[in-house]
Amino acid sequence: MAPSIPTEQYAQVFEKNGGPLEYKKIPVAKPAPDEVLVNIKFSGVCHTDLHALNGDWPLATKLPLVGGHEGAGVVVAKGNLAQDIEIGDHVGVKWINGSCLACSFCQQSDEPLCAHALLSGYTVDGSFQQYAIAKAAHVARIDKSIPLDAIAPVLCAGITVYKGLKESGARPGETVAIVGAGGGLGSLACQYAKAMGLQVIGIDTGEDKKKMVTGELGAETFIDFAKSTNLVKDVQAATADGLGPHAVLLVAVNEKPFQQAAEYVRPRGTVVCIGLPAGAYLRAPVFESVIKMVTIKGSYVGNRKDTAEALEFYRRGLIKAPYKVVGLSELPMVYEKMRAGAIAGRYVLDTSK
Amino acid sequence: MAPSIPTEQYAQVFEKNGGPLEYKKIPVAKPAPDEVLVNIKFSGVCHTDLHALNGDWPLATKLPLVGGHEGAGVVVAKGNLAQDIEIGDHVGVKWINGSCLACSFCQQSDEPLCAHALLSGYTVDGSFQQYAIAKAAHVARIDKSIPLDAIAPVLCAGITVYKGLKESGARPGETVAIVGAGGGLGSLACQYAKAMGLQVIGIDTGEDKKKMVTGELGAETFIDFAKSTNLVKDVQAATADGLGPHAVLLVAVNEKPFQQAAEYVRPRGTVVCIGLPAGAYLRAPVFESVIKMVTIKGSYVGNRKDTAEALEFYRRGLIKAPYKVVGLSELPMVYEKMRAGAIAGRYVLDTSK
Amino acid sequence: MAPSIPTEQYAQVFEKNGGPLEYKKIPVAKPAPDEVLVNIKFSGVCHTDLHALNGDWPLATKLPLVGGHEGAGVVVAKGNLAQDIEIGDHVGVKWINGSCLACSFCQQSDEPLCAHALLSGYTVDGSFQQYAIAKAAHVARIDKSIPLDAIAPVLCAGITVYKGLKESGARPGETVAIVGAGGGLGSLACQYAKAMGLQVIGIDTGEDKKKMVTGELGAETFIDFAKSTNLVKDVQAATADGLGPHAVLLVAVNEKPFQQAAEYVRPRGTVVCIGLPAGAYLRAPVFESVIKMVTIKGSYVGNRKDTAEALEFYRRGLIKAPYKVVGLSELPMVYEKMRAGAIAGRYVLDTSK
Amino acid sequence: MAPSIPTEQYAQVFEKNGGPLEYKKIPVAKPAPDEVLVNIKFSGVCHTDLHALNGDWPLATKLPLVGGHEGAGVVVAKGNLAQDIEIGDHVGVKWINGSCLACSFCQQSDEPLCAHALLSGYTVDGSFQQYAIAKAAHVARIDKSIPLDAIAPVLCAGITVYKGLKESGARPGETVAIVGAGGGLGSLACQYAKAMGLQVIGIDTGEDKKKMVTGELGAETFIDFAKSTNLVKDVQAATADGLGPHAVLLVAVNEKPFQQAAEYVRPRGTVVCIGLPAGAYLRAPVFESVIKMVTIKGSYVGNRKDTAEALEFYRRGLIKAPYKVVGLSELPMVYEKMRAGAIAGRYVLDTSK
Repeated sequence: MAPSIPTEQYAQVFEKNGGPLEYKKIPVAKPAPDEVLVNIKFSGVCHTDLHALNGDWPLATKLPLVGGHEGAGVVVAKGNLAQDIEIGDHVGVKWINGSCLACSFCQQSDEPLCAHALLSGYTVDGSFQQYAIAKAAHVARIDKSIPLDAIAPVLCAGITVYKGLKESGARPGETVAIVGAGGGLGSLACQYAKAMGLQVIGIDTGEDKKKMVTGELGAETFIDFAKSTNLVKDVQAATADGLGPHAVLLVAVNEKPFQQAAEYVRPRGTVVCIGLPAGAYLRAPVFESVIKMVTIKGSYVGNRKDTAEALEFYRRGLIKAPYKVVGLSELPMVYEKMRAGAIAGRYVLDTSK
Repeated sequence: MAPSIPTEQYAQVFEKNGGPLEYKKIPVAKPAPDEVLVNIKFSGVCHTDLHALNGDWPLATKLPLVGGHEGAGVVVAKGNLAQDIEIGDHVGVKWINGSCLACSFCQQSDEPLCAHALLSGYTVDGSFQQYAIAKAAHVARIDKSIPLDAIAPVLCAGITVYKGLKESGARPGETVAIVGAGGGLGSLACQYAKAMGLQVIGIDTGEDKKKMVTGELGAETFIDFAKSTNLVKDVQAATADGLGPHAVLLVAVNEKPFQQAAEYVRPRGTVVCIGLPAGAYLRAPVFESVIKMVTIKGSYVGNRKDTAEALEFYRRGLIKAPYKVVGLSELPMVYEKMRAGAIAGRYVLDTSK
Repeated sequence: MAPSIPTEQYAQVFEKNGGPLEYKKIPVAKPAPDEVLVNIKFSGVCHTDLHALNGDWPLATKLPLVGGHEGAGVVVAKGNLAQDIEIGDHVGVKWINGSCLACSFCQQSDEPLCAHALLSGYTVDGSFQQYAIAKAAHVARIDKSIPLDAIAPVLCAGITVYKGLKESGARPGETVAIVGAGGGLGSLACQYAKAMGLQVIGIDTGEDKKKMVTGELGAETFIDFAKSTNLVKDVQAATADGLGPHAVLLVAVNEKPFQQAAEYVRPRGTVVCIGLPAGAYLRAPVFESVIKMVTIKGSYVGNRKDTAEALEFYRRGLIKAPYKVVGLSELPMVYEKMRAGAIAGRYVLDTSK
Repeated sequence: MAPSIPTEQYAQVFEKNGGPLEYKKIPVAKPAPDEVLVNIKFSGVCHTDLHALNGDWPLATKLPLVGGHEGAGVVVAKGNLAQDIEIGDHVGVKWINGSCLACSFCQQSDEPLCAHALLSGYTVDGSFQQYAIAKAAHVARIDKSIPLDAIAPVLCAGITVYKGLKESGARPGETVAIVGAGGGLGSLACQYAKAMGLQVIGIDTGEDKKKMVTGELGAETFIDFAKSTNLVKDVQAATADGLGPHAVLLVAVNEKPFQQAAEYVRPRGTVVCIGLPAGAYLRAPVFESVIKMVTIKGSYVGNRKDTAEALEFYRRGLIKAPYKVVGLSELPMVYEKMRAGAIAGRYVLDTSK
C-alpha cells in the first residue's frame, strides 16, 4: 500500500542569505521521473549549513532555501525511471543530491566533481524539511537495521573521512596520523581507520581527548600537540621503525599543521587534506618534498560507492558517532551553539517536532 | 531548428530466431525522458548479430528484433532529462545501450556488468534501422571530424580490444603479444597497443598477415604459429631480455593458444581473454602459474570512459580500420559471407540504401 | 662481546633423496661477506621439507642436504658487507634464502621470481641444524618481543597467505572466501584477513572447524561444503548483497573447488591460488569468465616487504598459530606423522635437543 | 682475456668546496666484493656537479672529491659477489651509486630513498675520472648498440623525467603539460611523454623553442607563457574537452608556475615537481585543491627499474638528446659556461682527453 503523502509540510526556510530562518509550512514537491521523494525522519546539522545560511562561501546558494544535507528517511514516492529502489526503502539525502551521470567525471565514478552536481541544502532544497527530493540514483541506501537518527551525521562526516582514508592509499597494517583526532570528523576517522586495519596516531590536545582517542576510538598512540616540544620527532617516534606514518589525514587544516605533516610523514607517504578553511594554503618545502617523494592531495566528499562502503562499516557495528536529538523547530538554537563553538558531537533534528 | 523526423523508417527485422530477415518499414519510436533518438547513418555488422539472429547463445533475444550494435549517427530528438548532449550531436549506439546507473557495478563504472544492462540489437532494438533509441547517458560521443562510416566498426571491436589492453596492465614500453594479430580484432589491437606506447609481438599465420602486422599495424615482431616448431620459445625470444611478453591478448580463444600463453608470458605477466568461444575453457597448470605468479583474466566490452578514450585515439588519426560500405537492404548478403567465413575487414551498412 | 661459535653442531642430514635421515654432528659454516650465520633456536616443519627429502618435485635438491626453511634464531656472525643487521638480532631463515638483488625481478621487489634465488633446505642447507647460513639482506627481521618458537611456522605459512590476500586486491570492508579455512594455511589466512579489515567466509567441513573458524579465527560465516547442496548459491548468499565474495583464496587446490570459485566469485572479483598440487590445472569457462570479468591468479611466497608486514601483524598480537615443540632429533617422527596425515597445527623443532 | 688496468689515471679532483679543481693523476681503486670497476669513457656534466663543487647544498660532500654522476663506460673488474654482470659489459654510473638493498625502502624498490644511499660525485667519487667504482647491483645496464657519449646525459636527466612521468599516473592518450618544455630536462620529458602515448602541451617561451617543441619533440601544442595573458585559460583550452591536462610536470620550479599548475590541472589531476630550487615552497589554495581533488607530488630520481625502462626507450630510437663532447681536462670551461647560463644541451666529457 502506497504511503499517504500530505500536500504541505514543515520546513526551515530562509529567503535571503543572513536569514532570518523561518519554521513554517511549505508545499511538498513531486518527484521528476528520475527522482524520489523522501520522508526525512532525521537530519544532522553541519557547519556547511551555517555557511549556506550566511552566504559566506564563494559559491552562491539557491534562494529561498531549505538547508540540510544529512537527511535520513523513507522513500514515499518515486518517478517511473527510478531504478534499484523501492517505496519504503530507507535512504539518505546527502551533500551530492544528484549529478548528470553522463560527463567524463561521472563516467569515472567521480560524481562529486561533476560540473552539474546538485548540492542538497545549497543549490537545491535539502533535509531541513519533512519531505525532500533527491535523484534516485544518488540517495544513499540504508540497511533497515540501522537507526535513522544515528546514521544522519555519518552521511556527511563519516563518508568524508572514509573517502580521505581511501585516498591516502594507506594499506592495512600501515600507520596513519589523524590531526584533530578528538573532534567530530577526527573521531569518526579514528574508528574508520581502525576498521580498515590501520594503526592510528591521534594528534590533538587535552586529557579528555587523549582518553577517548586511545580508548573507545582505538588509536595506538596519542600525541598532545600543545605539550609536545618537537611534534615532528614525536610523531615519527610513534611508529615502530621511527620513519613516520605512511599517511596523514588533516581534518582541520591551517597552514602550520600542514607544513608539519609534510615533514613527519614517511618518505613516499601521503598527506590528505579534507578540511575547507577559506583562504588557507597548502605549503611544503620543494627540496624536502622531492627528496622524500611526498604526495599531498585534497579529498572532497565520497562518491556513491564510498557512501555504500562507509555505511556498511557502520552496519557492522564498527563505527559510533555521539549525537543529541532535538526538534526541527529548534534549528536556530543549534546554530547559536555552533556560532559559540559550544557543540561536542552532532545535533540531529527530528522533523516531527 | 529541430530536424524533421518521419513516422516510418526502413529496418531489418526478424520475428523469430533463425529468421527470416525482413527489410521493411516500421514506426519510428519516441525517446523516453532519459533517452535520445538517433538517426543512424551507418552500422557495422558483427558476428554477434548473427548469433542474435540464430538465437544460439544461452541468453534469449527480444522478439521481434532489429539487430545491430555498431550504429553511428546524429541525435534528432531527446528526452527532457537527457544531459550533456544536444540535438545534432554525433553519437554511437553500441552493445551497451543503457544500464541502471544505480547498482554497485554502475557505481564503480562497470556498467557492462550491470544486471539490468540493455543490449543493442539483442535485448532492445539496435542499429539496423534508420532511427534507433538509446539511453542518453550511454551513447558514445563522436567528434564531428570523424567520418560516421569509418567509426562504425570501431564502436564494438575497437573499444573491446582497447579495454582488453587496459585490463592487461601493460605499461608503455612493455611488450604485449597479440594472438590473432592479423584478424579483425587483432589488427585493431595492434594499432591501439602501439598508440599506447607498447611493443607488439603479433602472432598469426601467413605471409600477407606478416607483412600487414609488421608494416601498417606497427608490430615489432611477427611469429607465424604454423611455422614455429616451438612457439613458447619463439615468443620469449622475441623480447629484448628473453623473459617473454608482459601481457598476452587472446582475441580468438581456443584451449591451445590459451595454455601456451600461460607458458610464454613473463613471470608476473597477465593473459587477457576477450573472445567468447562457446564451451571453451581457460586452462593452465597450477604449479607453474603459482611459481610464476601469472594472472589470467577475462575482459568484456568497455565502459563509457573506455569508449571515449578509444574514440579519442581514433580522432587523433592513430587507428585505421578497413571496411566496405553496402546498403542496409543488403544485410542478408553480409550474413551469407559471414557464414562462409569470407569476410576480410568489416562490412558497414548505409541505412539510406 | 661476540658470541662464541662452536666448530661443530648437530644437524639432520640426508645424502640422497629418499633418505635415510641422519642426526649427526657436522661443521659450522662461515658467512661470506654478504651473509650472516644464524644460531637457529627453533624450526618449523613443512610439507615442502618432506618433498625435498623424497625428491618428488620437478626441481632437484642439493645433496647432501640439511632441510628446513622456517628457522628462527639469533645472528652470531656476519660478513663485512652485511648491512642493516647486527650480531644479536633475531631473524628468520625462510624459503627464499637469498636472491641476486640485481635482476629485473629483484629490481621490482619480486625476489621470489629471481632465476638465481637460493631456496633454504632445498638448493642450500636450511634450518634443521643449529647454525645456518643466509643472505643478510634476506633474513626476516624479528622483533625481540616475539617468541622464537611461536614465530617459526609463521615464517612460511603466514607470509604465504598474507601475500595471497594482498594479491587478491580485496580492500578493507570487502569479503573474501577462504577455501580450506580450517586447515593450517587456512586458519592463518582467516586471521590475517580479519586483521586486514576483510569480512571472511570460511569454507571447510565439520562441526569442530565451524566452531573454530567462526570463533577464534573471526570469520563472519562458515559454509560446510560437505553439507551444502548448492555451494555456489550458498557462498553468494553469505554476502550482504548476494553478489558473492570480492575474492577467493584457494589454499588447498584441486580442480573442483577452483571451478566453483570462478562461479561464485563476484563479477570483477579475483580468485587467488596459493597451493601447489602437482599436476593440477586451473580451469574456468571462458564465456562466463569474460562476461563477469573474473581474474584468476597464482600467488607464490611473499617478498621481503611482505615478510616484514606479515611479522608486524603477528607482533601486534593479531595472529595465533598453534604448534607443538619437539627436539630436532625427533624429526623422523614428525615426518612419519606427516605421511600419515596425522598433524593438526605445526610441529616446531627445538635445535638444542 | 681480462682488460689490463693501469694503477694510475686522470681525474678532476677538488680538496675543498669552492675548489680549485685539479686535473691530475690519482690511483685507480679496486672493487670490493659487491662492486665493479668501470672504465668511464664519457661523462655528462650536470648542475648538481657544480653544487657539489661549491658545497652550497644542505648535504655535505666527501672531500677530497671526484665529481660526476653521468658516467658511461665498460666494466673492467668486478668483486666476486657481483651478479648479473660481466667484464666487458657497458654500464652507467649514475647519481645513486649504491644503496643498502636491505632497508624497508630498498625492499620496496625505492633505493633512492635509502638512508644509506651512496651518491656518485657527491658522497663517493664519481665519473670525472677514467676508472670509477660503483655497486654492481646498481650500475645501469647499457645495450651495446647505444653510443656511450650519447647516453651519458640521459643517465641523469632522462631517467629523472621518465620517473616523473610515471609518478604522474597519466595513462596513454591522456594529456600532460610540461613546464619548461624547451629546456634540457623539458626536451627529454616531451620525448618520453610522446613515447609513452601521452599528448603533450609544452609550456615555455620564444619562437625557437616553439618550433622545437612542436616539431622534433612531438608536442601537440605550445603555449608561450610570456605572451599568454591568461595562462590558466590557455592551458585548459589546449585540451580537447577544455578541462585541462591530466598531469603537469614542473621541471623548473618556482612558486608562480607551481600555483598556476594547481589551477589549470584537470580535477583529479596530478602536479609533479622534479626540480630542486633551494628555498622554494609548494603552495596551493586548500579550498580549490580539495574541491578539485588535486594531487601534488615530489618525484626524485628513478630507481633501477625506471633506469632500465628509460634506457630501453632510448635503445628503441625514441629519444634524442643534443650534446657536445669536450675533453675531461676542459671541465673548468664547462663550469664557467654553466655559471654564465650559456649552455644549450649538455656537455659530455671524453675521459681520454
